[in-house]
Amino acid sequence: MSLPVLNNFPVEHLNDEQLSSLAAAAKRARVAALTMVTAAKSGHPAGAFSSMEMFMSVFGVANLTPKNCDSLDRDFVVVSHGHTSAGVYAALSEWGFVDREEAMAHFRNCGSAFQGHVTREVPGIDWGTGNLGQGLSAGVGFAIAQRANGRKGRVYVLMGDGGQTKGQIAEARRIAFKEKLTNVVALVDWNNIQISGDRRKVMPCDLPALWAADGWEVVECDGHSFPKLYDALKNAGKNGKPTVLLCHTIIGKDGLGMEDIPDYHGKPPAREMYDEIVKHLGDSPEVLDKALARRKTPPVYKGRKVDFPPAPSIETGKPFDYEGVKVSDNRGAFGKALADVGKLNYGKADKTPIIVFDCDLMPSVMTKGFKENCPDNFIQCGIQEHCVATMSGTASIAGVVPVWAEFGVFGIDEVFNQQRLNDINHAGNKTVLTHVGLDVGEDGKTHQCIDYVGLMRNMFGWKLVVPVDPNQTDRATRWMLKTSGDICLAVGRSKVDGLKEFTGDYEFEYGKAVKLRSGKDGSIFALGYMAQIALKAAEILAKENNLEVSVYAVSSPLAPDMEALKEAAKSGPIITVEDHHVDTGMGSIMIIEAARAGIALPKIKTLGVDHYGASGTSDAVRVEMGISAEGIAAGFLKAR
Amino acid sequence: MSLPVLNNFPVEHLNDEQLSSLAAAAKRARVAALTMVTAAKSGHPAGAFSSMEMFMSVFGVANLTPKNCDSLDRDFVVVSHGHTSAGVYAALSEWGFVDREEAMAHFRNCGSAFQGHVTREVPGIDWGTGNLGQGLSAGVGFAIAQRANGRKGRVYVLMGDGGQTKGQIAEARRIAFKEKLTNVVALVDWNNIQISGDRRKVMPCDLPALWAADGWEVVECDGHSFPKLYDALKNAGKNGKPTVLLCHTIIGKDGLGMEDIPDYHGKPPAREMYDEIVKHLGDSPEVLDKALARRKTPPVYKGRKVDFPPAPSIETGKPFDYEGVKVSDNRGAFGKALADVGKLNYGKADKTPIIVFDCDLMPSVMTKGFKENCPDNFIQCGIQEHCVATMSGTASIAGVVPVWAEFGVFGIDEVFNQQRLNDINHAGNKTVLTHVGLDVGEDGKTHQCIDYVGLMRNMFGWKLVVPVDPNQTDRATRWMLKTSGDICLAVGRSKVDGLKEFTGDYEFEYGKAVKLRSGKDGSIFALGYMAQIALKAAEILAKENNLEVSVYAVSSPLAPDMEALKEAAKSGPIITVEDHHVDTGMGSIMIIEAARAGIALPKIKTLGVDHYGASGTSDAVRVEMGISAEGIAAGFLKAR
Repeated sequence: MSLPVLNNFPVEHLNDEQLSSLAAAAKRARVAALTMVTAAKSGHPAGAFSSMEMFMSVFGVANLTPKNCDSLDRDFVVVSHGHTSAGVYAALSEWGFVDREEAMAHFRNCGSAFQGHVTREVPGIDWGTGNLGQGLSAGVGFAIAQRANGRKGRVYVLMGDGGQTKGQIAEARRIAFKEKLTNVVALVDWNNIQISGDRRKVMPCDLPALWAADGWEVVECDGHSFPKLYDALKNAGKNGKPTVLLCHTIIGKDGLGMEDIPDYHGKPPAREMYDEIVKHLGDSPEVLDKALARRKTPPVYKGRKVDFPPAPSIETGKPFDYEGVKVSDNRGAFGKALADVGKLNYGKADKTPIIVFDCDLMPSVMTKGFKENCPDNFIQCGIQEHCVATMSGTASIAGVVPVWAEFGVFGIDEVFNQQRLNDINHAGNKTVLTHVGLDVGEDGKTHQCIDYVGLMRNMFGWKLVVPVDPNQTDRATRWMLKTSGDICLAVGRSKVDGLKEFTGDYEFEYGKAVKLRSGKDGSIFALGYMAQIALKAAEILAKENNLEVSVYAVSSPLAPDMEALKEAAKSGPIITVEDHHVDTGMGSIMIIEAARAGIALPKIKTLGVDHYGASGTSDAVRVEMGISAEGIAAGFLKAR
Repeated sequence: MSLPVLNNFPVEHLNDEQLSSLAAAAKRARVAALTMVTAAKSGHPAGAFSSMEMFMSVFGVANLTPKNCDSLDRDFVVVSHGHTSAGVYAALSEWGFVDREEAMAHFRNCGSAFQGHVTREVPGIDWGTGNLGQGLSAGVGFAIAQRANGRKGRVYVLMGDGGQTKGQIAEARRIAFKEKLTNVVALVDWNNIQISGDRRKVMPCDLPALWAADGWEVVECDGHSFPKLYDALKNAGKNGKPTVLLCHTIIGKDGLGMEDIPDYHGKPPAREMYDEIVKHLGDSPEVLDKALARRKTPPVYKGRKVDFPPAPSIETGKPFDYEGVKVSDNRGAFGKALADVGKLNYGKADKTPIIVFDCDLMPSVMTKGFKENCPDNFIQCGIQEHCVATMSGTASIAGVVPVWAEFGVFGIDEVFNQQRLNDINHAGNKTVLTHVGLDVGEDGKTHQCIDYVGLMRNMFGWKLVVPVDPNQTDRATRWMLKTSGDICLAVGRSKVDGLKEFTGDYEFEYGKAVKLRSGKDGSIFALGYMAQIALKAAEILAKENNLEVSVYAVSSPLAPDMEALKEAAKSGPIITVEDHHVDTGMGSIMIIEAARAGIALPKIKTLGVDHYGASGTSDAVRVEMGISAEGIAAGFLKAR
């Protein structure tokens, strides 16, 4: 019996024939899921069985098919409880997205697309998950992108109940409510069992009250009933609010001996138990033998190729020039460039929408100009950084350029794991950290983001740009907006000089260090704005010590300029200077890459942050840290 | 008029005389706070004025005085909205904790104790904050420590209203409710103004409904009324639930021209405005002139010295020995040692209580034995890692040994900023990451914690231990439990061999690499358990290539053993091996420290994780990553 076409709710209610074919499919899917975990000797059977009717229903009714799943004008589905992957793959196989036999044979097998937690390599999966609490934020990001592009598609988010306690979910609820995202439909698998037992005892959490308190329409529903799920999904959002279906389910449902047993959260059944369950589901245990036999050969299906989103279609305009002493802060130059590019592209149907997210910091992160120029594309998200970090990731893969401007410690330290998942998922985030290093004014140690280079270095795809002056900031901003992939722009708070080197025809080039001064007696490599202070140090060394040192400005610390390093290695000592943790920043990266490349750096000294900073003016804090112009000059003399 | 003694609520209600002296003190404190921000030309005046009666009340009624604030048997106070520091310091000066003139002169001045965000260096401050959302979690940790030590003290947590949207607050609410922490009293400064304007428009959030939904007693209260605050604080907790006072306030209250204006969130008034406000408050603008004059001289008061908590009083027992092939997983050896030490110390009045926190992972993180041995000291916290990361920090400084066992990606990646604040605050956390590197079973890339060394390296105080085998794990666990400071123990999931080198009298020594095999043809440095695979690689090299290589096991990657490195540098090439991001782990640290120490490493090759890993058995995933025994041997040959 083939499954009925249910995409976009073609019927008022499901009829008997449709129901019986869905019931048969759910049985097959349970057999498949159970076979996957048993063959793999690992995985999460009970949750897969618990959510099976929810998976079958959502992948059935959504405007999401094997044919349209690589396009953007469609519905999106996020499975937040990604550990139920066996159930998801089984449901997807019923709806024709993936091959059932291959999934049963190679689930959790190295090299297969069918990983332990759902990944975008599997068609039908829009976001790789497994770290609980992020899924609803992901859904909100998709919904924002739909709206920005004038698309009508819905976003379905499926979650477990144990993870409902994660704070990030509440943040996402509030943004969805405030933004009136009636096209977001959340489903919670409410089986009341988590690893440690009864959910109500492990950590009491009043699910209906919490969703209602955050403004959502709450619908309780039998999570194993296809007709009730169909009707509830069909009616969601009709009252003008985002809707959650709290789906009453039984963990391990229809898995004889697994029902309501916490132990099967993450444990496959023994062979005998497998056989019993499969027979009960109307199939033969030989399914497992076949899967095991096939597992002896390598996986065939590696999944679809997942790339960073294509480069946005953006008009980037003409850069602004800044010349003079303390002419602008870099954050201000970012804000002006962003507002300019925003205006150029706002409301143009052939351009990728630029959406700016704010967490109640607009006056400090300089996005006011953009808001004035592009009011509909500015989204106030309140003090809820975890949600914003994730939603900007999904928005980026659904056809917008998301720009999140934020203080450094909140844009990366607070949300490192969310940015890591963005990296794993190949997103196209544009995160702008406006208060990095010691340049945060008098806010003190809790606000000094002295680790952004070191944190970003732990990922694989992120590009990081730390501009030297307002001119380079302007150009790097325009470059970032039109470039694919996850990019972080990091700027300080203080007014700095505009340097001629970065005006006029200068174009930002990722990975290239810029030599601001030449000298025969050694070199200073300085990160971003610190290059301006390094120039002053070079002047001191020339005047007081008769030494001529080169100054290289490094704006791409994750992609060290090896040619510049080779050149510098030829003349005298090298010191590195940054208002960043001295063990994890630009200097450390240069040392590692030089060692790997076999470039001998006989005398090298790293200057940077070696303790938590004081609370004072940026100038005073740098003096205390030994990286004022005088401190740098003294450091160079010691390195000789 | 001197202030009345109000600690521990000596009267039923405040009398007229007490009220008028409090009112006078609040005026003085507002003058002081305004003088601080005006003299510093930065800071947050409006919130300081908004919370002033709350600050004055809490520091008045709490069992917290300049005399007892360095002890533990007392009340604790957490100011979560740490940016209102000027108001906090002003209130503390009224209650005799700090010197008013010094605070007014040197607020936010480099070197002064009076930092931009409250810090523990200031007496009366129990937790340095400023990153919103963490304060209630901090309070819950203090309350847990009070209970564990049989102390009756209360914990007061003051918060702003804009930050109420942070998800971590909901997590803390739930844990407080579940643990029946009636001694926790939260106060929210509900002025409805945040940086971006009206809180109800910036991000709607139904405060009473949310606190009530999570089980708290909700009391609405006039936040500027001393008698009402006194009565409400006195009655808090009497109905058996944790209590929140939602305090209706006016931002900028009594600051003429500042009231209800978002702009003064983070901006001092101009001089004219300052003068007007100070006169209105009954004082002379000369206060500012005096402060400015004193500001020309360096700060006198650096604050009290804040150290890591003293080493716990713990009986660590006799280590277990493990010998044989795949005799135990390291996580299991940790669990057994923890259970053993727990039993030895459980319920003994002269021992520091060991409290184990769980986020619904007990069967995987191996804390079941401890729970069985020490049921009252095991706290189930649900899937709420942000709260637990913070609460274990404060619990540690209030007299317990907090052990949080957690998967790597949730214990550090997800909560990096919370662990950073623990470092800044000099906590004594014991975080055990049980699934690190590629050794997470088949869970795949989202669960592979390949960055824990690189993340930890961005802080200054954390110690990190990655044991080689169950014997070293056992000994490192016992060492950790009795050692002061923030310590992370990182172990894998697979069963591994028990090595003789770590049995018997072997004692764990932080920072020492252990040479497991000697050879003249080069060296392999391997992180933790990977040393066992490196030994197999050395066997392959001996057998197939007639090469004798040394194998050094590195268990303290943040504290490289420079003697071992010097020794190895003398004989042949060095390769480093770790199932960690190859750019940020042990190998990179060794290269940097060698360069700094002037140790020439002519031939070095770093093997590690250079892309997100596959989903498969740990063995298969390591083969794919090129760090199986065969891969390591091949890597060594390439390095020659």
